[in-house]
Amino acid sequence: MVKQERALRTRDTLIRSAAEIFDREGFAVASLTAISTLAGVSNGALHHHFVSKAALTDAVEEAALARLLVVTDAVLPLGASRMQLLVDVTHRLAGALRGDVVLRAGFELSGEVSRPPHADLREWWRRWVEETLKQADSEGELRPEVTAPDVVSAVVAATVGFEVMGVREAEWLSADTVTRFWRLLLPTVVPAALLADLDAEGTCPL
Amino acid sequence: MVKQERALRTRDTLIRSAAEIFDREGFAVASLTAISTLAGVSNGALHHHFVSKAALTDAVEEAALARLLVVTDAVLPLGASRMQLLVDVTHRLAGALRGDVVLRAGFELSGEVSRPPHADLREWWRRWVEETLKQADSEGELRPEVTAPDVVSAVVAATVGFEVMGVREAEWLSADTVTRFWRLLLPTVVPAALLADLDAEGTCPL
Repeated sequence: MVKQERALRTRDTLIRSAAEIFDREGFAVASLTAISTLAGVSNGALHHHFVSKAALTDAVEEAALARLLVVTDAVLPLGASRMQLLVDVTHRLAGALRGDVVLRAGFELSGEVSRPPHADLREWWRRWVEETLKQADSEGELRPEVTAPDVVSAVVAATVGFEVMGVREAEWLSADTVTRFWRLLLPTVVPAALLADLDAEGTCPL
Repeated sequence: MVKQERALRTRDTLIRSAAEIFDREGFAVASLTAISTLAGVSNGALHHHFVSKAALTDAVEEAALARLLVVTDAVLPLGASRMQLLVDVTHRLAGALRGDVVLRAGFELSGEVSRPPHADLREWWRRWVEETLKQADSEGELRPEVTAPDVVSAVVAATVGFEVMGVREAEWLSADTVTRFWRLLLPTVVPAALLADLDAEGTCPL
Protein backbone atom coordinates (compact mmCIF):
# COMPACT_ATOMS: atom_id res chain seq x y z
CA MET A 1 0.00 0.00 0.00
CA VAL A 2 2.72 2.42 1.02
CA LYS A 3 4.66 1.31 -2.03
CA GLN A 4 1.68 1.99 -4.28
CA GLU A 5 1.21 5.45 -2.78
CA ARG A 6 4.85 6.24 -3.36
CA ALA A 7 4.56 5.06 -6.99
CA LEU A 8 1.56 7.35 -7.53
CA ARG A 9 3.40 10.25 -5.99
CA THR A 10 6.44 9.63 -8.24
CA ARG A 11 4.14 9.49 -11.27
CA ASP A 12 2.61 12.87 -10.34
CA THR A 13 6.06 14.37 -9.75
CA LEU A 14 7.18 13.17 -13.19
CA ILE A 15 4.10 14.67 -14.88
CA ARG A 16 4.64 17.99 -13.13
CA SER A 17 8.38 17.99 -13.95
CA ALA A 18 7.64 17.21 -17.60
CA ALA A 19 5.16 20.10 -17.71
CA GLU A 20 7.77 22.44 -16.21
CA ILE A 21 10.43 21.41 -18.72
CA PHE A 22 7.95 21.64 -21.65
CA ASP A 23 6.86 25.09 -20.46
CA ARG A 24 10.42 26.33 -20.01
CA GLU A 25 12.30 24.71 -22.92
CA GLY A 26 9.56 23.70 -25.36
CA PHE A 27 8.10 20.22 -25.82
CA ALA A 28 10.10 19.15 -28.87
CA VAL A 29 13.56 19.72 -27.35
CA ALA A 30 12.67 18.59 -23.81
CA SER A 31 14.82 15.61 -22.80
CA LEU A 32 13.72 12.78 -20.54
CA THR A 33 16.99 13.24 -18.65
CA ALA A 34 16.12 16.87 -17.83
CA ILE A 35 12.70 15.71 -16.64
CA SER A 36 13.95 12.87 -14.44
CA THR A 37 16.65 15.15 -13.00
CA LEU A 38 14.08 17.81 -12.10
CA ALA A 39 11.83 15.13 -10.61
CA GLY A 40 14.76 13.77 -8.59
CA VAL A 41 14.37 10.21 -9.89
CA SER A 42 16.54 7.96 -12.03
CA ASN A 43 16.00 7.46 -15.75
CA GLY A 44 15.10 3.87 -14.90
CA ALA A 45 12.34 5.03 -12.56
CA LEU A 46 10.99 7.34 -15.27
CA HIS A 47 10.90 4.48 -17.79
CA HIS A 48 9.20 2.26 -15.21
CA HIS A 49 6.29 4.72 -15.21
CA PHE A 50 6.35 5.87 -18.83
CA VAL A 51 7.65 3.71 -21.68
CA SER A 52 8.37 6.72 -23.90
CA LYS A 53 8.33 10.49 -24.13
CA ALA A 54 5.06 10.10 -26.07
CA ALA A 55 3.46 8.21 -23.16
CA LEU A 56 4.66 10.82 -20.66
CA THR A 57 3.36 13.63 -22.89
CA ASP A 58 -0.04 11.95 -23.18
CA ALA A 59 -0.10 11.76 -19.36
CA VAL A 60 0.68 15.50 -19.11
CA GLU A 61 -2.23 16.24 -21.46
CA GLU A 62 -4.57 13.97 -19.48
CA ALA A 63 -3.59 15.62 -16.20
CA ALA A 64 -4.06 19.06 -17.79
CA LEU A 65 -7.49 18.05 -19.12
CA ALA A 66 -8.53 16.90 -15.63
CA ARG A 67 -7.56 20.35 -14.35
CA LEU A 68 -9.44 22.10 -17.16
CA LEU A 69 -12.54 20.08 -16.24
CA VAL A 70 -12.20 21.29 -12.63
CA VAL A 71 -12.16 24.87 -13.99
CA THR A 72 -15.18 24.40 -16.28
CA ASP A 73 -17.23 22.19 -13.91
CA ALA A 74 -18.34 25.22 -11.97
CA VAL A 75 -21.78 24.92 -10.43
CA LEU A 76 -24.18 27.59 -11.64
CA PRO A 77 -25.15 29.55 -8.51
CA LEU A 78 -28.89 29.81 -7.89
CA GLY A 79 -30.32 32.60 -10.01
CA ALA A 80 -27.08 33.23 -11.91
CA SER A 81 -27.17 33.47 -15.69
CA ARG A 82 -25.21 31.27 -18.10
CA MET A 83 -23.39 34.39 -19.26
CA GLN A 84 -22.19 35.10 -15.73
CA LEU A 85 -20.99 31.50 -15.54
CA LEU A 86 -19.04 32.03 -18.79
CA VAL A 87 -17.47 35.24 -17.44
CA ASP A 88 -16.60 33.55 -14.15
CA VAL A 89 -15.06 30.50 -15.84
CA THR A 90 -12.86 32.62 -18.15
CA HIS A 91 -11.56 34.35 -15.00
CA ARG A 92 -10.95 30.97 -13.35
CA LEU A 93 -9.19 29.72 -16.49
CA ALA A 94 -6.87 32.74 -16.66
CA GLY A 95 -6.06 32.37 -12.95
CA ALA A 96 -5.40 28.65 -13.34
CA LEU A 97 -3.16 29.23 -16.38
CA ARG A 98 -1.15 31.78 -14.38
CA GLY A 99 -0.54 29.42 -11.49
CA ASP A 100 -0.68 25.88 -12.84
CA VAL A 101 2.19 24.77 -15.05
CA VAL A 102 0.50 21.44 -15.91
CA LEU A 103 -2.60 23.18 -17.27
CA ARG A 104 -0.40 25.67 -19.14
CA ALA A 105 1.72 22.91 -20.69
CA GLY A 106 -1.47 21.07 -21.70
CA PHE A 107 -2.75 24.12 -23.59
CA GLU A 108 0.64 24.67 -25.23
CA LEU A 109 0.70 21.02 -26.40
CA SER A 110 -2.55 21.75 -28.31
CA GLY A 111 -0.57 23.94 -30.67
CA GLU A 112 2.40 21.58 -31.05
CA VAL A 113 2.58 20.55 -34.70
CA SER A 114 5.31 17.93 -34.17
CA ARG A 115 2.80 15.51 -32.60
CA PRO A 116 -0.94 14.92 -32.98
CA PRO A 117 -2.74 16.09 -29.82
CA HIS A 118 -3.89 13.27 -27.54
CA ALA A 119 -6.42 15.44 -25.67
CA ASP A 120 -6.61 18.76 -27.52
CA LEU A 121 -7.27 21.23 -24.66
CA ARG A 122 -8.00 24.22 -26.87
CA GLU A 123 -10.60 22.12 -28.68
CA TRP A 124 -12.09 20.96 -25.36
CA TRP A 125 -12.27 24.59 -24.26
CA ARG A 126 -13.89 25.60 -27.54
CA ARG A 127 -16.56 22.92 -27.09
CA TRP A 128 -17.31 24.01 -23.52
CA VAL A 129 -17.69 27.66 -24.58
CA GLU A 130 -19.93 26.57 -27.48
CA GLU A 131 -22.15 24.44 -25.22
CA THR A 132 -22.44 27.20 -22.62
CA LEU A 133 -23.35 29.83 -25.22
CA LYS A 134 -25.96 27.54 -26.79
CA GLN A 135 -27.59 27.26 -23.38
CA ALA A 136 -27.33 31.01 -22.85
CA ASP A 137 -28.99 31.52 -26.23
CA SER A 138 -31.83 29.09 -25.51
CA GLU A 139 -32.44 30.89 -22.22
CA GLY A 140 -32.80 34.24 -23.98
CA GLU A 141 -29.48 35.63 -22.71
CA LEU A 142 -28.21 36.70 -26.14
CA ARG A 143 -29.44 39.69 -28.10
CA PRO A 144 -31.67 38.65 -31.02
CA GLU A 145 -29.25 40.07 -33.62
CA VAL A 146 -26.30 38.05 -32.21
CA THR A 147 -25.79 34.35 -32.85
CA ALA A 148 -24.04 31.99 -30.44
CA PRO A 149 -21.29 31.00 -32.96
CA ASP A 150 -20.30 34.70 -33.32
CA VAL A 151 -19.69 34.91 -29.60
CA VAL A 152 -17.98 31.50 -29.45
CA SER A 153 -15.30 32.51 -31.91
CA ALA A 154 -14.66 35.90 -30.25
CA VAL A 155 -14.42 34.35 -26.76
CA VAL A 156 -12.31 31.35 -27.78
CA ALA A 157 -9.94 33.43 -29.93
CA ALA A 158 -9.44 36.04 -27.19
CA THR A 159 -8.88 33.49 -24.41
CA VAL A 160 -6.47 31.43 -26.53
CA GLY A 161 -4.74 34.73 -27.36
CA PHE A 162 -4.43 35.57 -23.65
CA GLU A 163 -3.00 32.09 -23.03
CA VAL A 164 -0.45 32.30 -25.85
CA MET A 165 0.65 35.88 -25.09
CA GLY A 166 0.70 34.98 -21.37
CA VAL A 167 3.55 32.52 -21.97
CA ARG A 168 5.89 35.51 -22.45
CA GLU A 169 4.09 38.12 -20.33
CA ALA A 170 1.90 37.17 -17.34
CA GLU A 171 -0.10 40.44 -17.54
CA TRP A 172 -2.09 38.91 -20.43
CA LEU A 173 -3.59 36.44 -17.93
CA SER A 174 -4.41 39.01 -15.25
CA ALA A 175 -7.94 39.43 -13.90
CA ASP A 176 -7.78 43.01 -15.17
CA THR A 177 -7.17 41.93 -18.80
CA VAL A 178 -10.09 39.48 -18.68
CA THR A 179 -12.39 42.07 -17.05
CA ARG A 180 -11.58 44.70 -19.67
CA PHE A 181 -12.32 42.21 -22.45
CA TRP A 182 -15.78 41.42 -21.03
CA ARG A 183 -16.58 45.11 -20.52
CA LEU A 184 -16.07 45.63 -24.26
CA LEU A 185 -17.90 42.50 -25.36
CA LEU A 186 -20.91 42.11 -23.04
CA PRO A 187 -22.90 45.20 -24.15
CA THR A 188 -23.23 43.92 -27.73
CA VAL A 189 -23.86 40.32 -26.67
CA VAL A 190 -26.53 40.41 -23.94
CA PRO A 191 -29.83 42.33 -23.71
CA ALA A 192 -29.71 45.57 -21.69
CA ALA A 193 -31.83 44.09 -18.89
CA LEU A 194 -29.32 41.30 -18.28
CA LEU A 195 -26.28 43.57 -18.68
CA ALA A 196 -27.04 45.39 -15.44
CA ASP A 197 -26.90 42.09 -13.52
CA LEU A 198 -23.62 40.88 -14.98
CA ASP A 199 -20.29 41.41 -13.30
CA ALA A 200 -17.40 41.56 -15.80
CA GLU A 201 -14.95 41.10 -12.92
CA GLY A 202 -16.48 37.72 -12.14
CA THR A 203 -18.45 36.73 -9.08
CA CYS A 204 -16.13 34.11 -7.61
CA PRO A 205 -12.56 35.38 -7.66
CA LEU A 206 -9.88 32.73 -7.21
CA MET B 1 25.27 39.35 -62.10
CA VAL B 2 23.41 36.21 -63.21
CA LYS B 3 25.30 34.29 -60.54
CA GLN B 4 24.26 36.82 -57.89
CA GLU B 5 20.64 36.63 -58.98
CA ARG B 6 20.72 32.87 -58.76
CA ALA B 7 22.23 33.07 -55.27
CA LEU B 8 19.45 35.41 -54.15
CA ARG B 9 16.84 33.11 -55.60
CA THR B 10 18.34 30.10 -53.81
CA ARG B 11 18.37 32.06 -50.56
CA ASP B 12 14.65 32.88 -50.97
CA THR B 13 13.86 29.26 -51.81
CA LEU B 14 15.67 28.11 -48.66
CA ILE B 15 13.76 30.60 -46.49
CA ARG B 16 10.46 29.49 -47.97
CA SER B 17 11.36 25.81 -47.61
CA ALA B 18 12.40 26.35 -43.99
CA ALA B 19 9.08 28.10 -43.30
CA GLU B 20 7.18 25.19 -44.86
CA ILE B 21 9.04 22.60 -42.79
CA PHE B 22 8.63 24.68 -39.59
CA ASP B 23 4.91 25.07 -40.30
CA ARG B 24 4.42 21.39 -41.05
CA GLU B 25 6.73 19.65 -38.55
CA GLY B 26 7.43 22.30 -35.92
CA PHE B 27 10.55 24.44 -35.61
CA ALA B 28 12.36 22.43 -32.94
CA VAL B 29 12.37 19.11 -34.79
CA ALA B 30 12.86 20.56 -38.30
CA SER B 31 16.09 19.23 -39.83
CA LEU B 32 18.33 21.15 -42.21
CA THR B 33 18.34 18.05 -44.44
CA ALA B 34 14.56 18.16 -44.80
CA ILE B 35 14.81 21.86 -45.66
CA SER B 36 17.56 21.50 -48.27
CA THR B 37 15.75 18.50 -49.80
CA LEU B 38 12.51 20.48 -50.13
CA ALA B 39 14.46 23.41 -51.58
CA GLY B 40 16.17 21.07 -54.07
CA VAL B 41 19.69 22.12 -53.07
CA SER B 42 22.59 20.31 -51.43
CA ASN B 43 23.40 20.58 -47.73
CA GLY B 44 26.57 22.35 -48.79
CA ALA B 45 24.60 25.00 -50.67
CA LEU B 46 22.40 25.52 -47.62
CA HIS B 47 25.46 26.01 -45.42
CA HIS B 48 26.93 28.41 -47.95
CA HIS B 49 23.91 30.69 -47.37
CA PHE B 50 23.26 30.01 -43.69
CA VAL B 51 25.96 28.96 -41.25
CA SER B 52 23.47 27.37 -38.85
CA LYS B 53 19.83 26.56 -38.24
CA ALA B 54 19.75 29.64 -35.98
CA ALA B 55 20.90 31.89 -38.85
CA LEU B 56 18.31 30.37 -41.22
CA THR B 57 15.58 30.80 -38.58
CA ASP B 58 16.54 34.45 -38.06
CA ALA B 59 16.24 34.91 -41.84
CA VAL B 60 12.75 33.34 -41.82
CA GLU B 61 11.70 35.78 -39.08
CA GLU B 62 13.17 38.75 -40.98
CA ALA B 63 11.38 37.73 -44.19
CA ALA B 64 8.13 37.29 -42.22
CA LEU B 65 8.54 40.71 -40.61
CA ALA B 66 9.02 42.30 -44.05
CA ARG B 67 5.72 40.71 -45.10
CA LEU B 68 3.97 41.87 -41.92
CA LEU B 69 5.16 45.42 -42.67
CA VAL B 70 3.63 45.17 -46.15
CA VAL B 71 0.33 44.21 -44.47
CA THR B 72 0.42 47.02 -41.91
CA ASP B 73 1.82 49.71 -44.22
CA ALA B 74 -1.59 50.32 -45.71
CA VAL B 75 -2.19 53.85 -46.87
CA LEU B 76 -5.13 55.49 -45.12
CA PRO B 77 -7.62 56.29 -47.90
CA LEU B 78 -8.74 59.92 -48.05
CA GLY B 79 -11.51 60.47 -45.52
CA ALA B 80 -11.17 57.02 -43.97
CA SER B 81 -10.99 56.68 -40.20
CA ARG B 82 -8.15 55.05 -38.25
CA MET B 83 -10.66 52.48 -37.01
CA GLN B 84 -11.52 51.50 -40.59
CA LEU B 85 -7.79 51.15 -41.25
CA LEU B 86 -7.50 48.83 -38.21
CA VAL B 87 -10.45 46.72 -39.43
CA ASP B 88 -9.01 46.55 -42.95
CA VAL B 89 -5.54 45.59 -41.75
CA THR B 90 -6.84 42.75 -39.52
CA HIS B 91 -8.62 41.40 -42.63
CA ARG B 92 -5.41 41.73 -44.65
CA LEU B 93 -3.44 40.00 -41.89
CA ALA B 94 -5.87 37.06 -41.70
CA GLY B 95 -5.77 36.72 -45.49
CA ALA B 96 -1.97 36.87 -45.54
CA LEU B 97 -1.71 34.27 -42.74
CA ARG B 98 -4.00 31.94 -44.72
CA GLY B 99 -1.93 32.15 -47.87
CA ASP B 100 1.64 32.95 -46.87
CA VAL B 101 3.60 30.19 -45.13
CA VAL B 102 6.56 32.49 -44.39
CA LEU B 103 4.38 34.98 -42.50
CA ARG B 104 2.65 32.12 -40.69
CA ALA B 105 5.98 30.53 -39.68
CA GLY B 106 7.20 33.93 -38.47
CA PHE B 107 4.18 34.33 -36.17
CA GLU B 108 4.57 30.77 -34.89
CA LEU B 109 8.25 31.41 -34.09
CA SER B 110 7.10 34.21 -31.74
CA GLY B 111 5.70 31.59 -29.42
CA GLU B 112 8.65 29.19 -29.65
CA VAL B 113 10.13 28.90 -26.15
CA SER B 114 13.17 26.90 -27.25
CA ARG B 115 14.80 30.03 -28.74
CA PRO B 116 14.63 33.75 -27.97
CA PRO B 117 12.75 35.53 -30.77
CA HIS B 118 14.95 37.50 -33.16
CA ALA B 119 12.09 39.63 -34.50
CA ASP B 120 9.06 38.89 -32.34
CA LEU B 121 6.18 39.27 -34.85
CA ARG B 122 3.39 39.09 -32.29
CA GLU B 123 5.08 41.91 -30.39
CA TRP B 124 5.49 43.93 -33.61
CA TRP B 125 1.81 43.40 -34.34
CA ARG B 126 0.86 44.44 -30.78
CA ARG B 127 2.85 47.67 -31.19
CA TRP B 128 1.22 48.50 -34.52
CA VAL B 129 -2.27 47.94 -33.07
CA GLU B 130 -1.35 50.09 -30.06
CA GLU B 131 -0.04 52.92 -32.24
CA THR B 132 -3.09 52.85 -34.50
CA LEU B 133 -5.51 52.89 -31.57
CA LYS B 134 -3.66 55.78 -29.93
CA GLN B 135 -4.13 57.76 -33.13
CA ALA B 136 -7.79 56.72 -33.33
CA ASP B 137 -8.24 57.89 -29.73
CA SER B 138 -6.56 61.24 -30.35
CA GLU B 139 -8.83 61.75 -33.36
CA GLY B 140 -11.96 61.18 -31.27
CA GLU B 141 -12.74 57.77 -32.77
CA LEU B 142 -13.11 55.98 -29.44
CA ARG B 143 -16.05 56.32 -27.07
CA PRO B 144 -15.15 58.43 -24.02
CA GLU B 145 -15.70 55.53 -21.60
CA VAL B 146 -13.29 53.26 -23.53
CA THR B 147 -9.50 53.53 -23.32
CA ALA B 148 -7.14 52.58 -26.13
CA PRO B 149 -5.29 49.89 -24.06
CA ASP B 150 -8.62 48.07 -23.46
CA VAL B 151 -9.15 47.79 -27.19
CA VAL B 152 -5.49 46.91 -27.87
CA SER B 153 -5.61 43.85 -25.65
CA ALA B 154 -8.95 42.63 -27.04
CA VAL B 155 -7.82 43.06 -30.67
CA VAL B 156 -4.34 41.59 -30.20
CA ALA B 157 -5.60 38.62 -28.15
CA ALA B 158 -8.35 37.82 -30.67
CA THR B 159 -6.09 38.12 -33.73
CA VAL B 160 -3.33 36.02 -32.12
CA GLY B 161 -6.07 33.54 -31.18
CA PHE B 162 -7.26 33.40 -34.81
CA GLU B 163 -3.65 32.86 -35.94
CA VAL B 164 -2.99 30.05 -33.40
CA MET B 165 -6.31 28.26 -33.96
CA GLY B 166 -5.86 28.77 -37.72
CA VAL B 167 -2.81 26.49 -37.71
CA ARG B 168 -5.16 23.51 -37.24
CA GLU B 169 -8.32 24.88 -38.87
CA ALA B 170 -8.22 27.51 -41.64
CA GLU B 171 -11.80 28.68 -40.90
CA TRP B 172 -10.39 30.70 -37.95
CA LEU B 173 -8.60 32.92 -40.48
CA SER B 174 -11.59 33.41 -42.79
CA ALA B 175 -12.91 36.88 -43.65
CA ASP B 176 -16.20 35.79 -42.08
CA THR B 177 -14.59 35.11 -38.67
CA VAL B 178 -12.85 38.50 -38.69
CA THR B 179 -16.04 40.31 -39.78
CA ARG B 180 -18.11 38.68 -37.03
CA PHE B 181 -15.51 39.70 -34.43
CA TRP B 182 -15.65 43.35 -35.51
CA ARG B 183 -19.46 43.35 -35.56
CA LEU B 184 -19.42 42.39 -31.89
CA LEU B 185 -16.64 44.76 -30.88
CA LEU B 186 -17.18 47.99 -32.84
CA PRO B 187 -20.47 49.12 -31.23
CA THR B 188 -18.87 49.38 -27.77
CA VAL B 189 -15.64 50.91 -29.08
CA VAL B 190 -16.61 53.74 -31.45
CA PRO B 191 -19.20 56.52 -31.12
CA ALA B 192 -22.57 55.89 -32.78
CA ALA B 193 -21.90 58.55 -35.46
CA LEU B 194 -18.73 56.78 -36.62
CA LEU B 195 -20.23 53.29 -36.38
CA ALA B 196 -22.56 53.93 -39.32
CA ASP B 197 -19.56 54.72 -41.53
CA LEU B 198 -17.52 51.65 -40.59
CA ASP B 199 -17.53 48.46 -42.61
CA ALA B 200 -16.77 45.39 -40.45
CA GLU B 201 -16.14 43.40 -43.64
CA GLY B 202 -13.27 45.69 -44.56
CA THR B 203 -13.11 48.13 -47.44
CA CYS B 204 -10.28 46.60 -49.45
CA PRO B 205 -10.76 42.83 -49.70
CA LEU B 206 -7.68 40.88 -50.70
